[in-house]
Amino acid sequence: MLKNTGTRCDLMLFGALGDLARRKLFPALYQLERAGLLAPGSRILAIARTRANTREIRERLFEKLRDHVKARDFDEAVARTLLERVDYQLLDFTDSEGFGALREWRDELRNELIVYMATPPSMYGVIARNLKATRCCNDRTRVVVEKPIGHDLASSQVINDELGEVYRESQLFRIDHYLGKETVQNLIALRFANNLFASQWDQNHISHVEITVAESVGIEGRWGYFDQAGQIRDMIQNHLLQLLCLIAMDPPADLSADSIRDEKVKVLKALKQITPDIMERYVVRGQYTSGTSDGKPVPGYLDEEGANRGSSTETFVALKAEIDNWRWSGVPFYIRTGKRLPEKLSQIIIHFKPAPHYIFDPDQKHLANNKLIIRLQPDEGMELKILTKDQGLDKGMRLRQGPLELTFSETFEAERIPDAYERLLWEVMRGNQYLFVRRDEVEYAWRWVDQIIGNWKDSGEPPKRYASGTWGPVASIAMITRDGRSWYEDA
Amino acid sequence: MLKNTGTRCDLMLFGALGDLARRKLFPALYQLERAGLLAPGSRILAIARTRANTREIRERLFEKLRDHVKARDFDEAVARTLLERVDYQLLDFTDSEGFGALREWRDELRNELIVYMATPPSMYGVIARNLKATRCCNDRTRVVVEKPIGHDLASSQVINDELGEVYRESQLFRIDHYLGKETVQNLIALRFANNLFASQWDQNHISHVEITVAESVGIEGRWGYFDQAGQIRDMIQNHLLQLLCLIAMDPPADLSADSIRDEKVKVLKALKQITPDIMERYVVRGQYTSGTSDGKPVPGYLDEEGANRGSSTETFVALKAEIDNWRWSGVPFYIRTGKRLPEKLSQIIIHFKPAPHYIFDPDQKHLANNKLIIRLQPDEGMELKILTKDQGLDKGMRLRQGPLELTFSETFEAERIPDAYERLLWEVMRGNQYLFVRRDEVEYAWRWVDQIIGNWKDSGEPPKRYASGTWGPVASIAMITRDGRSWYEDA
Repeated sequence: MLKNTGTRCDLMLFGALGDLARRKLFPALYQLERAGLLAPGSRILAIARTRANTREIRERLFEKLRDHVKARDFDEAVARTLLERVDYQLLDFTDSEGFGALREWRDELRNELIVYMATPPSMYGVIARNLKATRCCNDRTRVVVEKPIGHDLASSQVINDELGEVYRESQLFRIDHYLGKETVQNLIALRFANNLFASQWDQNHISHVEITVAESVGIEGRWGYFDQAGQIRDMIQNHLLQLLCLIAMDPPADLSADSIRDEKVKVLKALKQITPDIMERYVVRGQYTSGTSDGKPVPGYLDEEGANRGSSTETFVALKAEIDNWRWSGVPFYIRTGKRLPEKLSQIIIHFKPAPHYIFDPDQKHLANNKLIIRLQPDEGMELKILTKDQGLDKGMRLRQGPLELTFSETFEAERIPDAYERLLWEVMRGNQYLFVRRDEVEYAWRWVDQIIGNWKDSGEPPKRYASGTWGPVASIAMITRDGRSWYEDA
Repeated sequence: MLKNTGTRCDLMLFGALGDLARRKLFPALYQLERAGLLAPGSRILAIARTRANTREIRERLFEKLRDHVKARDFDEAVARTLLERVDYQLLDFTDSEGFGALREWRDELRNELIVYMATPPSMYGVIARNLKATRCCNDRTRVVVEKPIGHDLASSQVINDELGEVYRESQLFRIDHYLGKETVQNLIALRFANNLFASQWDQNHISHVEITVAESVGIEGRWGYFDQAGQIRDMIQNHLLQLLCLIAMDPPADLSADSIRDEKVKVLKALKQITPDIMERYVVRGQYTSGTSDGKPVPGYLDEEGANRGSSTETFVALKAEIDNWRWSGVPFYIRTGKRLPEKLSQIIIHFKPAPHYIFDPDQKHLANNKLIIRLQPDEGMELKILTKDQGLDKGMRLRQGPLELTFSETFEAERIPDAYERLLWEVMRGNQYLFVRRDEVEYAWRWVDQIIGNWKDSGEPPKRYASGTWGPVASIAMITRDGRSWYEDA
């Protein structure tokens, strides 16, 4: 296959000295440079509010690359090559006149433009308007924005409207970095390239699905920010619902961005509304108390630095999502995510239905269903649990659950798994929106989540406590147990 | 689970000093002893025509065990314990009066009796009659016989009739040692415990099946014996048709021997008859010529020691079997087996149909079907070929065929895979016939094979030549190519 070098394009990076740029974007650009995917002549304009010149900024970025790129991948020459592409512009994003400088930079170049807003969402509108006013962008410019797009449906609409006044939807690349993860994209290959799975991907063959995104860390220094959001806004509205969509969507007729996103939106629209009368059975909200994490004692959420002791913000959510359509009727999606859980673990488990008739030892009947485990963390990979005959001579036709296993890091040993941001930046350069979130996806996700948040507010019920280092409130176990099931634990 | 010790039973072993007994049966008994599966008080009567006493025979068997049991498994004390169970009886099997001695041995014991006829099939009838005449056996006696049961339908009926005069079908254990292989039994678990496979095991989901049993050896010292039979009688009538039955049978309602065998017989009955008009497209017969094997020059079949240079016996058969029933209509089973092929390899490949619609790179469409590979040789295990996304950043949504792999020898590291004869002897002791071949299976298999042999005879066409060290006559490749397929080669 021919090497697929990127087309020449320039990048304007707002917030170039911020946390995201430092930890993710420049390291990702470094890897693209290293892989030869940045076309010669592509330039980067780093934009921030720090008073410094280009030389100083390059030095600073060099040090950051050294910090954030893995040592075995770090090549000083590659870093220098990347940084030679970088110019620096001091700018107050609200200062429309200041954008004249950007215009000058643009005038020197004839490349396609990517604008990356690594800034708070409240800045998106003003940056967009100023870029337009100074004719720094046109209707081919691609604009990348980060989450959160608002904190509810109404506020997301405001942001989307502001962007929409300047850009068409086909120009907007809303990032959910989960979509850049190799395993997440692999869901598409797995589901639609393998008829073994494709032909079983429905309520006739699947009994239920689990999605767990567990963090072992707590809040750590961003209490105020997190407390405004809570776990449902921070994790479920975006990442977990995106995973759910990719698992549940009908097969798209092709791989174009809109074919895929049309199918995802259909799932979001079909999500069963969680009305007040079913809240107790469908949603569990938790907040961590003190306990242990990695063997060390840790404080509770309300005792963290900067905490408001009256907060009823959740740090854990477990819920049962149901999709009211032909494919998924009767198949619950059990979802949970939380902080200060026993381990950092993200996985999706597809529980297939057992065969209609069971002919093996009755005491092994609990083993009788196949499971497909898709791991995002800690080792990206997947595992298919199938039953084989137990080996021992004296065991007759006893069954044994054996994994058929595919761990990416092992299987593709020679190759580094690209970080999500490398993939996402590369797709922006290629102009491919399939890994980015469309406006209607954001809004349908908010609509569904808003109802749950509204129910919490109306009931006034506080979150259930759980000790740090446990799997959340016992109510989350009761929720799945009531359905005769349990959260998956690797045997 | 409780240790499942065998019930007390005695074994009369006819042909106790023959090749099978030495290489397979005593080593298997040794392993059963070692595993504690031979009940205290169980005795073994070795019967042969060699003049010797029990002490001498025990010494001789001890040496044979040392030769044939793997060194790491060999424990002298276990061997001695086993051999203390052994008595020896000199006997001419046709000498009915001589059976009086067996009767005396029996009179001392009150255990269930197993009679193992490790003799030429021509002896089965006379041994059975003599045992009956001396009342050495009763209607609970279990009788184990080896293949070949005849060389065609008529001769197999003679043998089965002779055995049937003395024993009921429920007493007869016809061995096909392939059924004792761990992977072969695993087919039952795989197919019926895993709905992922069970629900796809039909013409809606499977395009075709391959069964290859390749030997790298030639004839080596048994030319005369082999030349009477040929590859179709030696391998297809029994082993390969048994594999085909286990793959193709409808799910049995339970695991009882007759439920399973009823289903196998249904498959044999539904095999499409290969009439003269379709022979050319359905069957390829080959005979090896000189060539290389393991890098060394080797002679052709007609130049082997003891060869009759006019022989038209086949050493290779490839055929297309079709099963005319609801499950398999339109799904060919491509079968091939031969000697002096490039490697020793036994494997079954289930080719699943591709998904109805294909959305990935058009040039990868050939990858688009899942395959389940069940390996019997060299490493027992299985592998599921599934498609995942290729990892490289510049590869977009390129596919990659990754194996989900389960190799028994690796997965069950701690445990030795029992040899087929250990399993089979153990099942005889338990009185479980599910791994043994019923009379009607033998006869339906002969009926199908006889027709092919008859066609060869009628046409007078000689076998096609293939060089030693190749995959058989090119016609066997043409046979599958005509259907737009190819024999599987691991990429």
